[in-house]
Amino acid sequence: MTDQRRTAACLAVGSELLGEEKLDRNSLTITRAVARHGVVVVEKRVVGDDVDRISRTLRDLLEDHDLVVVTGGLGPTADDVTRDAVARALGRQIRASDEVAGWIHDRYAALGRETPEIADAMARVVDGGRPLRNLRGTAPGILFDLRGTLLAVFPGVPWEMEAMLERDLLPELETWHTGICRMTRTLLLGGIFESDVEERIRHLYGRFGRDNISILASFGVVRLVLAAEGEAAGVRRHLDVMERAYREVLGDDVAGIDVTGLPEAVLAELGQTGRTLATAESCTGGLVGARLTEIPGSSEVYVGGAVSYSNDAKERMLGVPHDLLVTHGAVSDEVARAMAEGVRRRLDADWGIGITGIAGPGGGTDDKPVGLVHWAAAGSGGTWALHRVFPGDRAVVREWSCNCALDLVRRKLRGGAS
Amino acid sequence: MTDQRRTAACLAVGSELLGEEKLDRNSLTITRAVARHGVVVVEKRVVGDDVDRISRTLRDLLEDHDLVVVTGGLGPTADDVTRDAVARALGRQIRASDEVAGWIHDRYAALGRETPEIADAMARVVDGGRPLRNLRGTAPGILFDLRGTLLAVFPGVPWEMEAMLERDLLPELETWHTGICRMTRTLLLGGIFESDVEERIRHLYGRFGRDNISILASFGVVRLVLAAEGEAAGVRRHLDVMERAYREVLGDDVAGIDVTGLPEAVLAELGQTGRTLATAESCTGGLVGARLTEIPGSSEVYVGGAVSYSNDAKERMLGVPHDLLVTHGAVSDEVARAMAEGVRRRLDADWGIGITGIAGPGGGTDDKPVGLVHWAAAGSGGTWALHRVFPGDRAVVREWSCNCALDLVRRKLRGGAS
Repeated sequence: MTDQRRTAACLAVGSELLGEEKLDRNSLTITRAVARHGVVVVEKRVVGDDVDRISRTLRDLLEDHDLVVVTGGLGPTADDVTRDAVARALGRQIRASDEVAGWIHDRYAALGRETPEIADAMARVVDGGRPLRNLRGTAPGILFDLRGTLLAVFPGVPWEMEAMLERDLLPELETWHTGICRMTRTLLLGGIFESDVEERIRHLYGRFGRDNISILASFGVVRLVLAAEGEAAGVRRHLDVMERAYREVLGDDVAGIDVTGLPEAVLAELGQTGRTLATAESCTGGLVGARLTEIPGSSEVYVGGAVSYSNDAKERMLGVPHDLLVTHGAVSDEVARAMAEGVRRRLDADWGIGITGIAGPGGGTDDKPVGLVHWAAAGSGGTWALHRVFPGDRAVVREWSCNCALDLVRRKLRGGAS
Repeated sequence: MTDQRRTAACLAVGSELLGEEKLDRNSLTITRAVARHGVVVVEKRVVGDDVDRISRTLRDLLEDHDLVVVTGGLGPTADDVTRDAVARALGRQIRASDEVAGWIHDRYAALGRETPEIADAMARVVDGGRPLRNLRGTAPGILFDLRGTLLAVFPGVPWEMEAMLERDLLPELETWHTGICRMTRTLLLGGIFESDVEERIRHLYGRFGRDNISILASFGVVRLVLAAEGEAAGVRRHLDVMERAYREVLGDDVAGIDVTGLPEAVLAELGQTGRTLATAESCTGGLVGARLTEIPGSSEVYVGGAVSYSNDAKERMLGVPHDLLVTHGAVSDEVARAMAEGVRRRLDADWGIGITGIAGPGGGTDDKPVGLVHWAAAGSGGTWALHRVFPGDRAVVREWSCNCALDLVRRKLRGGAS
């Protein structure tokens, strides 16, 4: 199977993609699209608007891969040099094309604008390349078939790039007839450590191949990405077999399949039986609510909650008894429970979540260090509380807290609590 | 000046970074950090967990740059092969180190866990490299000085990577004494469009150079990044002059300098006069609270709030009159006002924010389309409400809502309201 696998590389061009803010995201779209045709992106590069570096990089990549997709640097301004770099890398001439000039003129006309003089630069085509019309912008792309190796050069604007990718590149890949596609299926695990996962699933590596599984850990959730390749129907069946084998080992740790995260998994689990959820958040400050409401349709399950950042808010919004706060402190199992029960009662929800902790960097004591978080879940059958000291900075502690609290509800539901 | 400029490359290792979801973000942090020492990242690469490809890439990059920073692939599992790839690229041996094994053991012990057997893999060091202790995780890093070229190898977890970058790499760059640094200063603008900014500041391009300014727009905020390079004191003075000139043109649209976003700017503005803030969120579901509480010390200003996703929650948590909800609908200026006033009163805060809208994709009508959001700010001097139909998907509508509501409070404060 491996010998049939075609590889691809993405090259993003643009000095702004080497700055402190912006990342190239086109490579994600390209990766997803070419995977449908069994082509695997095995390398990504980003370089600035520098003819020499772009052309050297191109030569490198064309030697190594079956497909090279370049994005960016096709516009009309002086720093758009991708076209020239391609010509140099391939040792070919550039000439003005009347046909392409016509496309560009039509595009400006459609926008009710005069074609500016600098737009002429975009009407130049590299010998042997097929110019690709841009119906969503002005800069045309270029496609080369270099004795079996494809070189696609697209504008950097995602909306423009995507149109050419679908219309001009993917049909070419179809003709490769690899008959191979690669699919993945992701098991989301809640409340488990990466190293424990590895220990428990290792014995399955021999059967399904170590290369066909990736373990991605992220603050309270672990994603197990199962991959298979071959012809479509067989791949689906094989993934079913893999999924069953891994589920058997991991049991209730599996929170969902191909879900975006624990919020989606918990909403689904509650939604199946028409149950509702409310949240009472202190150190997470609304993060659990924000994550839940990211998901369209969450209003069917999630009714709302309180952000009780101050003690006063815990009393007023949630009815946490003043004595409890004085006796045990705001960061305690007792207060987490009272918060979960309070918000459940006040909003008449089936389940309530309470989270209280010290996210840092300030506020820690010897007794209650930075990172200590208590969380609780309250249902009609009882209230459960847990706590832990999470390692990491403020953002990390909050992320862990959010996931652990959601996972507690999930496990209690799975265990039959209501 | 250019000849003194040292160049760097970032190499992110990890097959998950070549998938359809995840991007390497460590390169942004590295770019920012090394820029303070005049080192410019001119190239980025991402490759999978493949010894051969990693080592070939490393050899390439080491030939071309003064600094190469590798992240990822240092963990204990079988697909963590960066250490082996470095050894191969440099033609060096790997040996087990008792010292490093001790660090790893101590780290597990601190977390109350046994050191698993697979952790031994991380205690191997490459000849000639300085092992870097990881105080935030288990995988140690490595630093090489290869006759003037630096090779830094860090774990992929950002929180762990950042600590080593600051502690182990940056002091090395100081010794390079390039004498040149590039600094930036960022003006954060709230409640303004990118195209309007460009029109208003264009006349300053001639004076300060078009290349020394970047305009980054993001759903209700615009960042204006001013840049200058040279020796440190001169750069700072030049940035002061630039900042004054741009501020003069932009006036109250400038929400802050070098702040992370509107939440930080609003907290600072309120904190200066000891005022407090509470939030009542519907369609944003806790996002404003989550953003405010991301910032350490936010508890001085932000007291909490309600996520009143359902109508029932709006009545119970905020005292929004039932009649108002029936007469005007939940998405209306009237309800936004009542939410802001209600949470302000209930939590005894100086300012209250109310947000109610239709984030989509469902729930829109002809009268009240998807994207329609009403927001309000209530202070002791009055309540102000605004609304708009935001273009974009659910996430974009929520982002705009969050920023517009915070900007309303900011402008009212700036205008002298209390």
